[in-house]
Amino acid sequence: MSQTQQGGPAADPRPVDERTYAWVEPAGVLPLLASLPGEDYLRGIGDGTVPPPPIAMTLGFGPLRVEGGEVSVELDPQPFHDNPIGTMHGGVVSALLDTVTGCAVHATLPAGTGYTSLDISVRFVRAITSSTGTIRATGRVVHRGRRTAVAEARLTDTQGRLLASATSTCLVMEPS
Amino acid sequence: MSQTQQGGPAADPRPVDERTYAWVEPAGVLPLLASLPGEDYLRGIGDGTVPPPPIAMTLGFGPLRVEGGEVSVELDPQPFHDNPIGTMHGGVVSALLDTVTGCAVHATLPAGTGYTSLDISVRFVRAITSSTGTIRATGRVVHRGRRTAVAEARLTDTQGRLLASATSTCLVMEPS
Amino acid sequence: MSQTQQGGPAADPRPVDERTYAWVEPAGVLPLLASLPGEDYLRGIGDGTVPPPPIAMTLGFGPLRVEGGEVSVELDPQPFHDNPIGTMHGGVVSALLDTVTGCAVHATLPAGTGYTSLDISVRFVRAITSSTGTIRATGRVVHRGRRTAVAEARLTDTQGRLLASATSTCLVMEPS
Amino acid sequence: MSQTQQGGPAADPRPVDERTYAWVEPAGVLPLLASLPGEDYLRGIGDGTVPPPPIAMTLGFGPLRVEGGEVSVELDPQPFHDNPIGTMHGGVVSALLDTVTGCAVHATLPAGTGYTSLDISVRFVRAITSSTGTIRATGRVVHRGRRTAVAEARLTDTQGRLLASATSTCLVMEPS
Repeated sequence: MSQTQQGGPAADPRPVDERTYAWVEPAGVLPLLASLPGEDYLRGIGDGTVPPPPIAMTLGFGPLRVEGGEVSVELDPQPFHDNPIGTMHGGVVSALLDTVTGCAVHATLPAGTGYTSLDISVRFVRAITSSTGTIRATGRVVHRGRRTAVAEARLTDTQGRLLASATSTCLVMEPS
Repeated sequence: MSQTQQGGPAADPRPVDERTYAWVEPAGVLPLLASLPGEDYLRGIGDGTVPPPPIAMTLGFGPLRVEGGEVSVELDPQPFHDNPIGTMHGGVVSALLDTVTGCAVHATLPAGTGYTSLDISVRFVRAITSSTGTIRATGRVVHRGRRTAVAEARLTDTQGRLLASATSTCLVMEPS
Repeated sequence: MSQTQQGGPAADPRPVDERTYAWVEPAGVLPLLASLPGEDYLRGIGDGTVPPPPIAMTLGFGPLRVEGGEVSVELDPQPFHDNPIGTMHGGVVSALLDTVTGCAVHATLPAGTGYTSLDISVRFVRAITSSTGTIRATGRVVHRGRRTAVAEARLTDTQGRLLASATSTCLVMEPS
Repeated sequence: MSQTQQGGPAADPRPVDERTYAWVEPAGVLPLLASLPGEDYLRGIGDGTVPPPPIAMTLGFGPLRVEGGEVSVELDPQPFHDNPIGTMHGGVVSALLDTVTGCAVHATLPAGTGYTSLDISVRFVRAITSSTGTIRATGRVVHRGRRTAVAEARLTDTQGRLLASATSTCLVMEPS
């Protein structure tokens, strides 16, 4: 299925689109991740002083914002997000929601404390296409315990209509 | 955050990677989707006679297989899948699992009957990195009702170890 | 495990508690359920003119309230709700949350339209014991489509602290 | 809503049912819970040497079985489990599934190690009534990590048809 395969898109008689994008290797950013409190690290991604992770470039995420305990990411729906019927694949929706639930938990952590998402439960409410316009995922922590945190997220359009929602539990990992 | 922004990856002093890929526009494939029974359509993606959807190219999915009521997709973990700590982002895991739960339901549908995923619940079991090797998501339907279907999926490594799992309910939409 | 088994609670040398309760058979209430708009039926349970369902008596639910698009139920944690460590069993928590997500959807339905819960995803946040005091589950609909509805619920203590939360998708069944 | 309220079931002109049951207080059983490996404790409930928790008596659970890494519980659907339309309330289904996912994790724990369910995601597949006959919930662990465990459960009828399913993540709490 890669573009170098025989019979791949380049050889298809139907219209083909192409995209090129770049990202900073995470290894070069890890020292920042390890030394900054979560909220500072995330604000750094938002203001451009910390490079976003590769997945954010792969999926074309817009700027990350941290504000009043909420973390949000915008995305402009584009053809490369699409499933076979030309709407945004549920995996992109899940990726946005997983990003902001995880980041909302990360924003509560001091430097040196890690976390991992144990699960995410996503509900798809409305189909999303290029004509939906910019969508925004917003996450917030509803419970921050010593070992676990629970976060919620909503995906909305510019009119504030709900497109999808998610809840997630993260494991908080204090340095041992 | 796009690569054309000032301060984007191209301008970053840290090592930068770049990737180019292509996909066939879904509009050109819709006639096939509408006219084929689900299983035939999916087998077509697997044998290269039907172009995969854009998201499959964006995330670098390997071939789709339909076999004995199960649908599977392989993926080679690559740097462009990564979150800030250099492991596969939960959104990519979710995208794989959402793909095979949805396709498992699709495989049960006659031509002209559509479906939509109402939700997906994903559990992340083990971190995934380039050194994990090829991973495989396998989905199957555990209940196919008249209006809804329930599917399950597992993500495993080449040793068969569980990396993640998911369950999903889809709404089946008969042509009216 | 019934109390009439040999070796059951009655014969146990440890302290045994007993409880007797009653309920109105649902068959006698179905005509009301079928003829009333959802909100009127639920208000009827709240004001005592409609008998609550058996499960509400089995678990000792307090009054149901419908107010401003939200449905709530209170419960006084009691020993008969407990798991082996003397805290409220997750199933009771789930039953409360499932009740208010379902009722929130029911409250949006005209007379004669039914619904069924497709799933519920529950997060347990804090342990609940008799010393927690009265707890309240509150549900509301966040999306009401033609065929499905999504509802959310929170379980809180008298100080408003989050004890558990849930989301659920219901299938709306118009009379055919 | 209690049977001593004015206007409660006793005063209702419609047919009323009544039930009395008993349970052993958990405080008297805690020493066994603390001193036995999880599997031994659960087998004790199964063979009648350890009293079941109050919730098992409240909901009328049948015997618990631990076999080959799976934990199962049977239940005979009865009127006191019902929602307003005379089918088993989703909370009872959830309680059964939560019991066997939790017990499957418990069965892997040495004496003195506790656990708590972080969440449960339940899918309701078929309506359950008295005519369904005995139903059985079976749980098993699909991942046992150091800090967390993931368990799955299925609810089936005597013909093995799927009635509901669930997945759950538990936090494992080593004595500190």
